[in-house]
Amino acid sequence: MTTTTYETQIEADADVPLIRITREFDAPRSKVFRAHVDPELVKQWLGPRGYEMRVLHFECRTGGSYRYEHLDGDSTYGFYGSFHEVRPDEMIVQTFTYDGMPDGVALERLVLTDLGDGRTRLVVTSLCDSFADRDAMIASGMEDGIRQSYERLDELLA
Amino acid sequence: MTTTTYETQIEADADVPLIRITREFDAPRSKVFRAHVDPELVKQWLGPRGYEMRVLHFECRTGGSYRYEHLDGDSTYGFYGSFHEVRPDEMIVQTFTYDGMPDGVALERLVLTDLGDGRTRLVVTSLCDSFADRDAMIASGMEDGIRQSYERLDELLA
Repeated sequence: MTTTTYETQIEADADVPLIRITREFDAPRSKVFRAHVDPELVKQWLGPRGYEMRVLHFECRTGGSYRYEHLDGDSTYGFYGSFHEVRPDEMIVQTFTYDGMPDGVALERLVLTDLGDGRTRLVVTSLCDSFADRDAMIASGMEDGIRQSYERLDELLA
Repeated sequence: MTTTTYETQIEADADVPLIRITREFDAPRSKVFRAHVDPELVKQWLGPRGYEMRVLHFECRTGGSYRYEHLDGDSTYGFYGSFHEVRPDEMIVQTFTYDGMPDGVALERLVLTDLGDGRTRLVVTSLCDSFADRDAMIASGMEDGIRQSYERLDELLA
Protein backbone atom coordinates (compact mmCIF):
# COMPACT_ATOMS: atom_id res chain seq x y z
CA MET A 1 0.00 0.00 0.00
CA THR A 2 1.27 3.47 -0.89
CA THR A 3 1.09 6.17 1.76
CA THR A 4 0.82 9.74 0.51
CA THR A 5 2.77 12.17 2.68
CA TYR A 6 1.38 15.68 2.76
CA GLU A 7 3.40 18.67 3.84
CA THR A 8 3.03 19.82 7.44
CA GLN A 9 2.73 23.63 7.61
CA ILE A 10 3.93 25.16 10.87
CA GLU A 11 3.40 28.91 11.21
CA ALA A 12 4.08 31.40 13.99
CA ASP A 13 1.19 33.88 14.13
CA ALA A 14 2.21 37.52 13.69
CA ASP A 15 -0.34 39.04 16.09
CA VAL A 16 -0.73 36.59 18.98
CA PRO A 17 1.73 34.14 20.61
CA LEU A 18 0.31 31.18 18.76
CA ILE A 19 1.65 28.35 16.58
CA ARG A 20 -0.62 27.01 13.82
CA ILE A 21 -0.04 23.54 12.35
CA THR A 22 -1.94 22.45 9.23
CA ARG A 23 -1.82 18.97 7.73
CA GLU A 24 -4.00 16.83 5.46
CA PHE A 25 -4.55 13.09 5.77
CA ASP A 26 -5.83 10.48 3.32
CA ALA A 27 -8.27 9.11 5.88
CA PRO A 28 -11.83 9.86 6.97
CA ARG A 29 -12.32 12.35 9.76
CA SER A 30 -13.67 9.84 12.28
CA LYS A 31 -10.54 7.72 11.85
CA VAL A 32 -8.19 10.68 12.36
CA PHE A 33 -10.23 11.70 15.41
CA ARG A 34 -10.09 8.20 16.92
CA ALA A 35 -6.29 8.17 16.52
CA HIS A 36 -6.19 11.23 18.83
CA VAL A 37 -8.59 9.87 21.47
CA ASP A 38 -7.69 6.20 21.98
CA PRO A 39 -4.42 6.01 23.97
CA GLU A 40 -3.56 2.65 22.39
CA LEU A 41 -3.57 4.40 18.99
CA VAL A 42 -1.97 7.66 20.21
CA LYS A 43 1.02 5.65 21.51
CA GLN A 44 1.66 4.41 17.97
CA TRP A 45 2.23 7.80 16.36
CA LEU A 46 2.72 10.67 18.84
CA GLY A 47 6.35 11.71 19.15
CA PRO A 48 9.53 11.50 17.11
CA ARG A 49 10.52 8.22 15.47
CA GLY A 50 12.48 5.93 17.76
CA TYR A 51 10.89 7.25 20.95
CA GLU A 52 8.74 5.00 23.10
CA MET A 53 5.59 6.55 24.53
CA ARG A 54 4.37 5.55 27.99
CA VAL A 55 0.83 6.65 28.87
CA LEU A 56 0.27 7.14 32.61
CA HIS A 57 -3.33 8.18 32.10
CA PHE A 58 -5.26 9.52 29.14
CA GLU A 59 -8.97 10.27 29.39
CA CYS A 60 -9.78 12.20 26.23
CA ARG A 61 -13.25 13.51 27.17
CA THR A 62 -14.60 16.91 28.22
CA GLY A 63 -13.22 17.40 31.75
CA GLY A 64 -10.68 14.58 31.48
CA SER A 65 -6.90 14.78 31.78
CA TYR A 66 -3.71 13.09 30.63
CA ARG A 67 -0.09 12.40 31.47
CA TYR A 68 2.42 10.65 29.23
CA GLU A 69 6.15 10.28 28.80
CA HIS A 70 8.41 10.00 25.80
CA LEU A 71 11.37 7.71 26.40
CA ASP A 72 14.55 8.12 24.37
CA GLY A 73 17.21 5.74 25.72
CA ASP A 74 17.88 6.90 29.29
CA SER A 75 16.03 10.20 28.84
CA THR A 76 12.40 10.69 29.86
CA TYR A 77 10.29 13.67 28.80
CA GLY A 78 6.97 14.06 30.64
CA PHE A 79 3.89 15.98 29.49
CA TYR A 80 0.52 16.60 31.12
CA GLY A 81 -2.66 18.57 30.78
CA SER A 82 -6.43 18.58 30.91
CA PHE A 83 -9.11 18.21 28.24
CA HIS A 84 -11.30 21.31 28.28
CA GLU A 85 -13.70 20.06 25.61
CA VAL A 86 -13.95 17.10 23.27
CA ARG A 87 -16.51 17.25 20.41
CA PRO A 88 -16.56 13.87 18.66
CA ASP A 89 -14.97 13.95 15.18
CA GLU A 90 -14.65 17.75 15.26
CA MET A 91 -12.59 19.35 17.97
CA ILE A 92 -10.37 18.77 20.99
CA VAL A 93 -9.36 21.67 23.26
CA GLN A 94 -6.73 20.82 25.84
CA THR A 95 -3.95 22.30 27.94
CA PHE A 96 -0.31 21.20 27.61
CA THR A 97 2.75 21.46 29.84
CA TYR A 98 6.20 19.92 29.46
CA ASP A 99 7.63 18.85 32.85
CA GLY A 100 10.90 20.59 31.99
CA MET A 101 9.10 23.98 31.83
CA PRO A 102 6.54 23.59 34.63
CA ASP A 103 5.31 27.18 34.50
CA GLY A 104 4.72 27.15 30.74
CA VAL A 105 1.19 26.25 29.74
CA ALA A 106 -0.17 26.14 26.19
CA LEU A 107 -3.85 26.07 25.23
CA GLU A 108 -4.21 23.74 22.25
CA ARG A 109 -7.12 23.39 19.86
CA LEU A 110 -7.40 20.59 17.29
CA VAL A 111 -10.01 21.09 14.54
CA LEU A 112 -10.73 18.39 11.94
CA THR A 113 -12.47 19.25 8.66
CA ASP A 114 -13.98 16.64 6.35
CA LEU A 115 -12.61 17.42 2.84
CA GLY A 116 -14.69 14.70 1.13
CA ASP A 117 -13.29 11.68 -0.75
CA GLY A 118 -12.02 10.23 2.54
CA ARG A 119 -9.64 13.13 3.16
CA THR A 120 -9.32 15.22 6.31
CA ARG A 121 -7.65 18.52 7.18
CA LEU A 122 -6.19 18.89 10.66
CA VAL A 123 -5.45 22.31 12.16
CA VAL A 124 -3.81 22.49 15.59
CA THR A 125 -3.29 25.87 17.25
CA SER A 126 -1.12 26.21 20.32
CA LEU A 127 -1.55 29.45 22.27
CA CYS A 128 1.22 30.47 24.71
CA ASP A 129 1.38 33.05 27.51
CA SER A 130 4.02 35.14 25.79
CA PHE A 131 5.93 35.52 22.53
CA ALA A 132 9.10 34.47 24.40
CA ASP A 133 7.49 31.14 25.43
CA ARG A 134 6.08 30.59 21.95
CA ASP A 135 9.45 31.26 20.30
CA ALA A 136 11.23 29.01 22.83
CA MET A 137 8.79 26.22 21.90
CA ILE A 138 9.63 26.65 18.20
CA ALA A 139 13.37 26.84 18.95
CA SER A 140 13.17 23.56 20.92
CA GLY A 141 13.11 21.61 17.67
CA MET A 142 9.41 20.74 17.97
CA GLU A 143 8.99 21.02 14.18
CA ASP A 144 10.89 17.84 13.38
CA GLY A 145 8.98 15.97 16.08
CA ILE A 146 5.65 17.13 14.68
CA ARG A 147 6.52 16.21 11.08
CA GLN A 148 7.70 12.76 12.17
CA SER A 149 4.57 12.27 14.29
CA TYR A 150 2.28 13.00 11.34
CA GLU A 151 4.27 10.70 9.05
CA ARG A 152 3.80 7.97 11.66
CA LEU A 153 0.09 8.84 11.80
CA ASP A 154 -0.12 8.47 7.98
CA GLU A 155 1.31 4.97 8.37
CA LEU A 156 -1.11 4.07 11.15
CA LEU A 157 -4.10 5.33 9.15
CA ALA A 158 -3.09 3.53 5.94
CA MET B 1 -16.01 44.32 62.07
CA THR B 2 -14.58 46.71 59.49
CA THR B 3 -13.75 45.30 56.05
CA THR B 4 -11.05 47.11 54.08
CA THR B 5 -11.86 47.23 50.40
CA TYR B 6 -8.85 47.37 48.12
CA GLU B 7 -9.01 48.54 44.55
CA THR B 8 -9.31 45.89 41.84
CA GLN B 9 -6.97 46.66 38.92
CA ILE B 10 -8.11 45.28 35.58
CA GLU B 11 -5.67 45.78 32.69
CA ALA B 12 -5.72 44.76 29.05
CA ASP B 13 -2.19 43.70 28.04
CA ALA B 14 -0.72 45.67 25.13
CA ASP B 15 1.25 42.80 23.54
CA VAL B 16 -0.85 39.65 24.00
CA PRO B 17 -4.66 39.09 24.15
CA LEU B 18 -4.65 38.87 27.93
CA ILE B 19 -6.53 40.49 30.81
CA ARG B 20 -4.66 40.95 34.11
CA ILE B 21 -6.57 41.40 37.37
CA THR B 22 -4.70 42.43 40.54
CA ARG B 23 -6.28 42.65 44.01
CA GLU B 24 -5.08 42.54 47.61
CA PHE B 25 -6.92 40.92 50.52
CA ASP B 26 -6.61 41.33 54.28
CA ALA B 27 -6.44 37.59 54.80
CA PRO B 28 -3.72 34.93 54.84
CA ARG B 29 -2.88 33.22 51.59
CA SER B 30 -4.15 29.79 52.65
CA LYS B 31 -7.56 31.28 53.43
CA VAL B 32 -7.79 33.08 50.06
CA PHE B 33 -6.72 29.87 48.34
CA ARG B 34 -9.35 27.78 50.19
CA ALA B 35 -12.07 30.23 49.11
CA HIS B 36 -11.20 29.38 45.47
CA VAL B 37 -11.08 25.61 45.94
CA ASP B 38 -14.01 24.66 48.17
CA PRO B 39 -17.23 24.93 46.12
CA GLU B 40 -19.27 25.69 49.27
CA LEU B 41 -17.10 28.80 49.75
CA VAL B 42 -16.86 29.69 46.04
CA LYS B 43 -20.68 29.84 45.87
CA GLN B 44 -20.67 32.56 48.50
CA TRP B 45 -18.60 35.10 46.59
CA LEU B 46 -18.17 34.29 42.86
CA GLY B 47 -20.40 36.42 40.64
CA PRO B 48 -22.19 39.75 40.81
CA ARG B 49 -24.26 40.62 43.89
CA GLY B 50 -27.83 39.34 43.76
CA TYR B 51 -26.96 36.35 41.56
CA GLU B 52 -27.36 32.83 42.87
CA MET B 53 -24.61 30.36 41.97
CA ARG B 54 -25.45 26.72 41.30
CA VAL B 55 -22.47 24.35 41.19
CA LEU B 56 -23.04 21.28 38.99
CA HIS B 57 -19.59 19.92 39.70
CA PHE B 58 -16.35 21.48 40.92
CA GLU B 59 -13.24 19.40 41.48
CA CYS B 60 -10.46 21.93 41.94
CA ARG B 61 -7.44 19.61 41.63
CA THR B 62 -4.85 19.00 38.90
CA GLY B 63 -6.81 17.21 36.17
CA GLY B 64 -10.25 18.06 37.62
CA SER B 65 -13.04 20.03 36.00
CA TYR B 66 -16.01 22.25 36.84
CA ARG B 67 -19.39 23.47 35.67
CA TYR B 68 -21.50 26.12 37.38
CA GLU B 69 -24.35 28.47 36.60
CA HIS B 70 -25.17 32.00 37.68
CA LEU B 71 -28.91 32.55 38.10
CA ASP B 72 -30.36 36.06 37.79
CA GLY B 73 -34.15 35.86 37.97
CA ASP B 74 -35.21 33.83 34.92
CA SER B 75 -31.78 34.05 33.26
CA THR B 76 -29.15 31.33 33.58
CA TYR B 77 -25.50 31.80 32.58
CA GLY B 78 -23.43 28.61 32.44
CA PHE B 79 -19.64 28.28 32.63
CA TYR B 80 -17.33 25.28 32.42
CA GLY B 81 -13.71 24.30 32.18
CA SER B 82 -10.93 22.04 33.39
CA PHE B 83 -8.23 22.48 36.02
CA HIS B 84 -4.84 22.09 34.36
CA GLU B 85 -2.84 22.42 37.58
CA VAL B 86 -3.55 23.24 41.21
CA ARG B 87 -0.56 24.04 43.50
CA PRO B 88 -1.86 24.38 47.07
CA ASP B 89 -1.82 27.99 48.35
CA GLU B 90 0.07 29.18 45.26
CA MET B 91 -1.47 28.75 41.87
CA ILE B 92 -4.50 27.51 39.93
CA VAL B 93 -4.37 27.16 36.12
CA GLN B 94 -7.71 26.44 34.49
CA THR B 95 -9.66 26.83 31.27
CA PHE B 96 -12.88 28.83 31.07
CA THR B 97 -15.78 28.93 28.61
CA TYR B 98 -19.11 30.75 28.82
CA ASP B 99 -21.96 28.65 27.34
CA GLY B 100 -23.11 31.68 25.34
CA MET B 101 -19.78 31.74 23.44
CA PRO B 102 -19.05 28.02 23.09
CA ASP B 103 -16.04 28.46 20.81
CA GLY B 104 -14.32 30.99 23.06
CA VAL B 105 -11.86 29.48 25.52
CA ALA B 106 -9.70 31.42 27.97
CA LEU B 107 -6.66 30.04 29.80
CA GLU B 108 -6.71 31.47 33.31
CA ARG B 109 -3.90 31.56 35.87
CA LEU B 110 -4.42 32.57 39.51
CA VAL B 111 -1.25 33.35 41.48
CA LEU B 112 -1.37 34.17 45.22
CA THR B 113 1.55 35.95 46.92
CA ASP B 114 1.97 36.14 50.70
CA LEU B 115 2.59 39.83 51.51
CA GLY B 116 3.17 39.19 55.24
CA ASP B 117 1.05 40.58 58.11
CA GLY B 118 -1.84 38.33 57.01
CA ARG B 119 -2.19 40.04 53.61
CA THR B 120 -2.30 38.39 50.20
CA ARG B 121 -1.96 39.62 46.63
CA LEU B 122 -4.04 37.89 43.97
CA VAL B 123 -3.15 38.13 40.28
CA VAL B 124 -5.44 36.47 37.73
CA THR B 125 -4.48 36.45 34.06
CA SER B 126 -6.95 35.42 31.40
CA LEU B 127 -5.45 34.60 28.00
CA CYS B 128 -7.75 34.60 24.95
CA ASP B 129 -7.36 33.28 21.40
CA SER B 130 -7.56 36.70 19.81
CA PHE B 131 -7.66 40.41 20.63
CA ALA B 132 -11.27 40.47 19.36
CA ASP B 133 -12.32 37.82 21.92
CA ARG B 134 -10.38 39.54 24.70
CA ASP B 135 -11.94 42.92 23.91
CA ALA B 136 -15.43 41.35 23.68
CA MET B 137 -14.90 39.87 27.15
CA ILE B 138 -14.02 43.31 28.54
CA ALA B 139 -16.95 44.93 26.70
CA SER B 140 -19.35 42.36 28.23
CA GLY B 141 -19.29 44.28 31.50
CA MET B 142 -17.14 41.70 33.30
CA GLU B 143 -15.35 44.43 35.26
CA ASP B 144 -18.34 45.22 37.50
CA GLY B 145 -18.91 41.51 38.13
CA ILE B 146 -15.26 41.02 39.13
CA ARG B 147 -15.21 44.04 41.48
CA GLN B 148 -18.43 42.87 43.15
CA SER B 149 -17.10 39.31 43.45
CA TYR B 150 -13.99 40.48 45.26
CA GLU B 151 -15.98 42.73 47.59
CA ARG B 152 -18.07 39.67 48.44
CA LEU B 153 -14.86 37.69 48.97
CA ASP B 154 -13.62 40.42 51.39
CA GLU B 155 -16.81 39.93 53.39
CA LEU B 156 -16.46 36.13 53.39
CA LEU B 157 -12.82 36.34 54.52
CA ALA B 158 -13.53 38.88 57.30
